[in-house]
Amino acid sequence: MAKFGKKLVKRDLVESQFGNISVRKGEKMLITKRGIALDEIYKEGVVELDIEKSSYLDRIASSETIVHRTIYKNTPAFAIIHAHPVFAVIESMLVDTKTIIPINIEGEHFLHEIPVVKGAPGTAELADNTAQALIGHKGAVICGHGTFAIGKTLDEAYFVTALVEQSCKLKYYFDMAKK
Amino acid sequence: MAKFGKKLVKRDLVESQFGNISVRKGEKMLITKRGIALDEIYKEGVVELDIEKSSYLDRIASSETIVHRTIYKNTPAFAIIHAHPVFAVIESMLVDTKTIIPINIEGEHFLHEIPVVKGAPGTAELADNTAQALIGHKGAVICGHGTFAIGKTLDEAYFVTALVEQSCKLKYYFDMAKK
Amino acid sequence: MAKFGKKLVKRDLVESQFGNISVRKGEKMLITKRGIALDEIYKEGVVELDIEKSSYLDRIASSETIVHRTIYKNTPAFAIIHAHPVFAVIESMLVDTKTIIPINIEGEHFLHEIPVVKGAPGTAELADNTAQALIGHKGAVICGHGTFAIGKTLDEAYFVTALVEQSCKLKYYFDMAKK
Amino acid sequence: MAKFGKKLVKRDLVESQFGNISVRKGEKMLITKRGIALDEIYKEGVVELDIEKSSYLDRIASSETIVHRTIYKNTPAFAIIHAHPVFAVIESMLVDTKTIIPINIEGEHFLHEIPVVKGAPGTAELADNTAQALIGHKGAVICGHGTFAIGKTLDEAYFVTALVEQSCKLKYYFDMAKK
Repeated sequence: MAKFGKKLVKRDLVESQFGNISVRKGEKMLITKRGIALDEIYKEGVVELDIEKSSYLDRIASSETIVHRTIYKNTPAFAIIHAHPVFAVIESMLVDTKTIIPINIEGEHFLHEIPVVKGAPGTAELADNTAQALIGHKGAVICGHGTFAIGKTLDEAYFVTALVEQSCKLKYYFDMAKK
Repeated sequence: MAKFGKKLVKRDLVESQFGNISVRKGEKMLITKRGIALDEIYKEGVVELDIEKSSYLDRIASSETIVHRTIYKNTPAFAIIHAHPVFAVIESMLVDTKTIIPINIEGEHFLHEIPVVKGAPGTAELADNTAQALIGHKGAVICGHGTFAIGKTLDEAYFVTALVEQSCKLKYYFDMAKK
Repeated sequence: MAKFGKKLVKRDLVESQFGNISVRKGEKMLITKRGIALDEIYKEGVVELDIEKSSYLDRIASSETIVHRTIYKNTPAFAIIHAHPVFAVIESMLVDTKTIIPINIEGEHFLHEIPVVKGAPGTAELADNTAQALIGHKGAVICGHGTFAIGKTLDEAYFVTALVEQSCKLKYYFDMAKK
Repeated sequence: MAKFGKKLVKRDLVESQFGNISVRKGEKMLITKRGIALDEIYKEGVVELDIEKSSYLDRIASSETIVHRTIYKNTPAFAIIHAHPVFAVIESMLVDTKTIIPINIEGEHFLHEIPVVKGAPGTAELADNTAQALIGHKGAVICGHGTFAIGKTLDEAYFVTALVEQSCKLKYYFDMAKK
């Protein structure tokens, strides 16, 4: 988790204290704590929680814990990355439809489409909408907020995050040139 | 301070010799010296000054020392970061009003609005306007120049700086697409 | 190869798991494995294949192995880099003609023109088109996908990749300002 | 020189093999060799040349050696950095006049104006035009090519390079928004 936290920040996919990471561990999940800087995750920066039921430890976990939990309950994800990449957020605010359609070959091939979901940070509404979108997709964008990406490994969740942003960036610049 | 200096440069929020950092230490403040490269702060790159009264040491401190001092006198800030992020500066020159209104969820939630203040570098006018703006806000942009962000810790001041820039960047690209 | 993999990612020319690198070694070629992160190539991340004939090892090699092989058969290249730089891909989708013409002095001098080729990833059609284009050029862009650059050394292939992207970026921003 | 080479590449002001660095050493100058990667300068990557007269060693020195030499002959520069930052090159191609006028406060204050000069790489014409421009300025842009910045130290030449690019980037984005 420390490695991918550093990588996300270094690759400009998230700014330090924004965003969070988790991995499934049987009936539990390991998730980054609230307010932790993603490029400085250390052992104490992570907390272990039950996937099925919340506990008093939720208070110190990421404020998006409810979203991670709902995703693990509804999908086979083993790893989740929540980031705030700029062009994914911009495209989520620009599309009228409920999905962003990539125009680059990798985006088309691996993502097909990127669902845009709604909901205020940390709410059950957001958690449900995001989990729902991730049943049929590897990555989704919360309108005006950021991305959630899942994978069998953190490697895959990282790859999806990077590909969502790359696809949205390409689309943004292409559309601007075509205007 | 060395850590956050490196981080600001690495994250593109300031270019090396531009910008400065300080922390409150009782009635004193530690501030980066004039002309110091923020990604190379070492112990000798910082000077301790009285908050209440200027001294002959002001000459070797950051040329924005007066702004830091005035902020500490007028707000409960424990840490101040002055940076020059590109999109915050651009937005400060584009807005007609006295505040930049973030359109992303984090920007709205944590900043509400970002005041734009005026004044020439190193002047009492700039110091007063900036301190005034930071009584009710965590971050402000000096028109055509750069950001001042405050926090209980350097961590918080860094977070505010990054969020101001992220919010301004999103707003810029969104507005360009909507034109 | 590890060094240039890291450099490509660090310099934003490719995102980790996208892209691949190879070098000629007599009648063989060393190529990065399928799904390997370019900034984490280690000795086991590379596989040695015959240039002239495919084998069961192709399965674990990059999915673009056929393109590398065809380039080595048809050109004197000693090193090949396949990357996914943003502006090269955008320009490849924007040009109506079969070549991108650089407007900066280095681009004009070293590249003259950048051919844009077509073909689906991993196909013989793409391999043939790319190899054909690289007989007379150092770098080419696959429409909507990424770059292939060749050189006598990895140094040169890296230089060509960076120059193709730099030239496309300059051209994009210049054309936008001229609109 | 190694430090500033790394810094230029890391800060996106130049791409590896483009660009060169020199320092005055009495009647001599130390200059990076032809084709050297700026982020990998080592002791053998630099050559010592007479400022006043060329020699057979010129062949292995940077292809812009004539420009460095002419600058040292005509100005009090102690250090020179030649880089290829994107927005400085774009602005040099967009201005009709012979100077780029910064719109940000630091650009106005430290640079006043940035002369744009013409001439093919490695020619006496380019060398004369650049040296002439640097008599009254700290930095200049060669149209469609890159920047030359001078200083009493490499620190200053680096600062000027970064400020020229920052000022051009701000101007570009501001002008685009105002269109």
